[in-house]
Amino acid sequence: MALTFNSVDPRTGEAGPSFTEATPEDVRAAVAAAAAVHRSGALRDRAKRAALLRGAAARLRAAGDEIVAVAEAETGLPEPRLRSELERTAGQLEAFAAIVDAGDDAEAIIDHPDPDAVPIPKPDVRRMQVPLGPVAVFGASNFPLAFSTAGGDTASALAAGCPVIVKGHPSHPGTGEIVARELRAAVADAGLPDGTFANLTAAGVEVGEALVDAPEVAAVGFTGSFNGGKAIFDRAARRPAPIPVYAEMGSINPIVVTEAALRARAEKIADGLTASVANFGGQLCTKPGVVFVPVGEQGDAFAADLAARLDAAAPSVLLNERLRDALRDAVDRLAARPEVRALGEAPAPDGPGFRHQPAAYEAPADAAADELFEEHFGPVVLLLRHRSREELLAALERIEGQLSGTLLAEPGDDVDDIVSALAARAGRVVFDGFPTGVAVTYGMHHGGPFPATTSPPHTSVGMTAVHRFTRPVAFQDAPEHVLPPELREDNPLGIRRRVDSVPS
Amino acid sequence: MALTFNSVDPRTGEAGPSFTEATPEDVRAAVAAAAAVHRSGALRDRAKRAALLRGAAARLRAAGDEIVAVAEAETGLPEPRLRSELERTAGQLEAFAAIVDAGDDAEAIIDHPDPDAVPIPKPDVRRMQVPLGPVAVFGASNFPLAFSTAGGDTASALAAGCPVIVKGHPSHPGTGEIVARELRAAVADAGLPDGTFANLTAAGVEVGEALVDAPEVAAVGFTGSFNGGKAIFDRAARRPAPIPVYAEMGSINPIVVTEAALRARAEKIADGLTASVANFGGQLCTKPGVVFVPVGEQGDAFAADLAARLDAAAPSVLLNERLRDALRDAVDRLAARPEVRALGEAPAPDGPGFRHQPAAYEAPADAAADELFEEHFGPVVLLLRHRSREELLAALERIEGQLSGTLLAEPGDDVDDIVSALAARAGRVVFDGFPTGVAVTYGMHHGGPFPATTSPPHTSVGMTAVHRFTRPVAFQDAPEHVLPPELREDNPLGIRRRVDSVPS
Repeated sequence: MALTFNSVDPRTGEAGPSFTEATPEDVRAAVAAAAAVHRSGALRDRAKRAALLRGAAARLRAAGDEIVAVAEAETGLPEPRLRSELERTAGQLEAFAAIVDAGDDAEAIIDHPDPDAVPIPKPDVRRMQVPLGPVAVFGASNFPLAFSTAGGDTASALAAGCPVIVKGHPSHPGTGEIVARELRAAVADAGLPDGTFANLTAAGVEVGEALVDAPEVAAVGFTGSFNGGKAIFDRAARRPAPIPVYAEMGSINPIVVTEAALRARAEKIADGLTASVANFGGQLCTKPGVVFVPVGEQGDAFAADLAARLDAAAPSVLLNERLRDALRDAVDRLAARPEVRALGEAPAPDGPGFRHQPAAYEAPADAAADELFEEHFGPVVLLLRHRSREELLAALERIEGQLSGTLLAEPGDDVDDIVSALAARAGRVVFDGFPTGVAVTYGMHHGGPFPATTSPPHTSVGMTAVHRFTRPVAFQDAPEHVLPPELREDNPLGIRRRVDSVPS
Repeated sequence: MALTFNSVDPRTGEAGPSFTEATPEDVRAAVAAAAAVHRSGALRDRAKRAALLRGAAARLRAAGDEIVAVAEAETGLPEPRLRSELERTAGQLEAFAAIVDAGDDAEAIIDHPDPDAVPIPKPDVRRMQVPLGPVAVFGASNFPLAFSTAGGDTASALAAGCPVIVKGHPSHPGTGEIVARELRAAVADAGLPDGTFANLTAAGVEVGEALVDAPEVAAVGFTGSFNGGKAIFDRAARRPAPIPVYAEMGSINPIVVTEAALRARAEKIADGLTASVANFGGQLCTKPGVVFVPVGEQGDAFAADLAARLDAAAPSVLLNERLRDALRDAVDRLAARPEVRALGEAPAPDGPGFRHQPAAYEAPADAAADELFEEHFGPVVLLLRHRSREELLAALERIEGQLSGTLLAEPGDDVDDIVSALAARAGRVVFDGFPTGVAVTYGMHHGGPFPATTSPPHTSVGMTAVHRFTRPVAFQDAPEHVLPPELREDNPLGIRRRVDSVPS
């Protein structure tokens, strides 16, 4: 008898449709099909890969109303956010298609021979990145579209030429199945084999574990909690043949606000920070969790203003009951600490479903507890009040690897040491803005030192995300006819290459 | 009292000078100094980095006679090989200096803002690769210069801007100390702090373990055995904050010889293969361990010719007693297998020191034993005889990740399936040549799927080796004055960058 589970509307707590849990046999079949596609070389066809990515984007846009309606009921995220996320998802699929057109995933390098080189002659060396193999993607709870079924990990893995098997997040199984339906149709439209993409719906951990263990799976993409990502990393490292795990595990995204910035525009900063903390229930990997604010009157007024704004915000609907309970418990522990003070009223949330009241807390920046630097996944922020530059820098030094670090300063401020401290521990340093709302640009970096991610050299947003799923192969003195088109002398695909050390 | 050990001349087995084992305190001091250099940002100075690399190359060349004499006595490798290896070592230091000049290590990306982008405006994003932090390098036994103290791992880590701590190989401690002396002098000449480079001499495993465990160490480079590399990989993965381990662990580097190639030039192939198997005691990571040869008269004649050539070769001096004993035991086990046949006389090696007679064995390609695909680190090769293309391809499918795969064929041969099988499991596919003698070119790839390496996307030879030791940092909407020079609008360093998606 098949196991089933129901989706839940977090706005009401009521059960939605029933979904069938993927079986071990489903996992084996998906992995075998993906491995067969990889071996066949079908995904090496650059034109078909680009067609798949563009086709998927078009189909997702066309099915937008259906997708957004189901996602709204499954996640409680507001419709405009979901429409924006859908457009982002389609846009990044198209951006990766452009990468495939340009050949940037291949990073083709051609070194012509040099028979006179010392100490030994240099042969003809032509090298390109080739797909690693089937990729397992773990969908995120908080981005049902952009970091899930057809999200950034899937788009970049397909762009790299890897078949993808998604383990969908149980918070939005219906959304995942609709998106998967469209992606599978795009696979067929592009003339690619069925095993190119699979979506496994599951509420238990067994499906994910089986995917990580499958010998044919070559890499894992994950967005979620530290505990989830680290468990997958450890499991993959213990395999007889270890595989890379690209886990993005969130962070506290520290913000530093200078005295001058408060003097110049405290209200504007409070307004922006309120949105960055509370929008979408604060359930963003880049939500600012800790804000450094100087002690003194300016800072006090700013803290009071921020608290009032958060108090006035409606209670946030969180993605699911487990997340809500975990947040409530963590915030209770934080608030119970002797050095921590609640800044506002933080009324108990009203209404059905899974809700949490946006709230701010504060503590002295020199408080020693590591607990102050823990992530609270939800609409909660902790202000750390420093009495001097030294105290600020000492506190920053205690912060582990981060996705982002933000500085709100004025032109006259001397900020070099703060910027250095942020850049030393964060993947992205944001100036005079907020870390949430990660735009997809070529060079965007969404990653960072451990424990923000398990693979600091890599990003899960931006075009270089494609490099997570490839490895180089060099052809030495190969006859032209055996070379892949990317490496032939006349460059029949017209891709970008590095020839004799120089990009062209 | 300090622990000491003696170097050993493998040509005679006699003890050489005594060396002092590095202590736990030495490890702590080297790590602390390296971490301080990393925090100081001193190595971010591109001109000083390039000066260090070029200065080291010049100093190594100037000290060449002294280095080669000591290395010869410690490794038994012939002087011309060591002179060539020294030039290669100097040359790759200079090649990485050129990379630093060109800024290729930085992979700078500049995305100008687009306020009209959908679904959200695109900010100004400027991204570059920054050094990971102190790198621990484990010197190799078989390349006392090019893969040791100032070898490829050290050169690429310094080029990336990372301080380096070398754990020298106990087979050549004196060589390591002279090279380290020159490298430290080059550090001083370049105006860089002392902690930029350290060399720890050690015969035990404790120094290496302490380096891998040190919280400040950010990455590990290793060249050596599977057991050694895998133990370091596992240890690094178990750290509270795991770090990347770039371990190159050798392979059997399969060669396929077609019937047509044998008909056209059997003698030339036997000559080249003899050198590739037996030169330098066969102690190369890319030494061909398995050669696929068709059954039949042509193949039999080729096998006999190869065996005669290897029999006629002088016994090889191996690097140390442990290696010699391990090889002898492994070859004894191989030769004792019922399906394996010794092709020549393989006389017991004569002479003092640690020697092994070059030798060839053969077995049917359809023999099932995994032991036939084990690496024998030394002058030994196994011919696998296949009766059909199907048998050849089936045997290739059983081979794990490799550094290289080689095809010796004639223009008329239909080789697509063989090339695909080799490219699917090897980092480099060599045509009509031999895999040994890895030239340093921009795109050279010396790496491959596990178990050839622990990090298939990376290479330890060629210019892209620098990317093992960096991570990206993106600056979003940063004022010009806080940006590193690599990312300033006017490109004051004149480095290569990718601006608005296009390399320039």
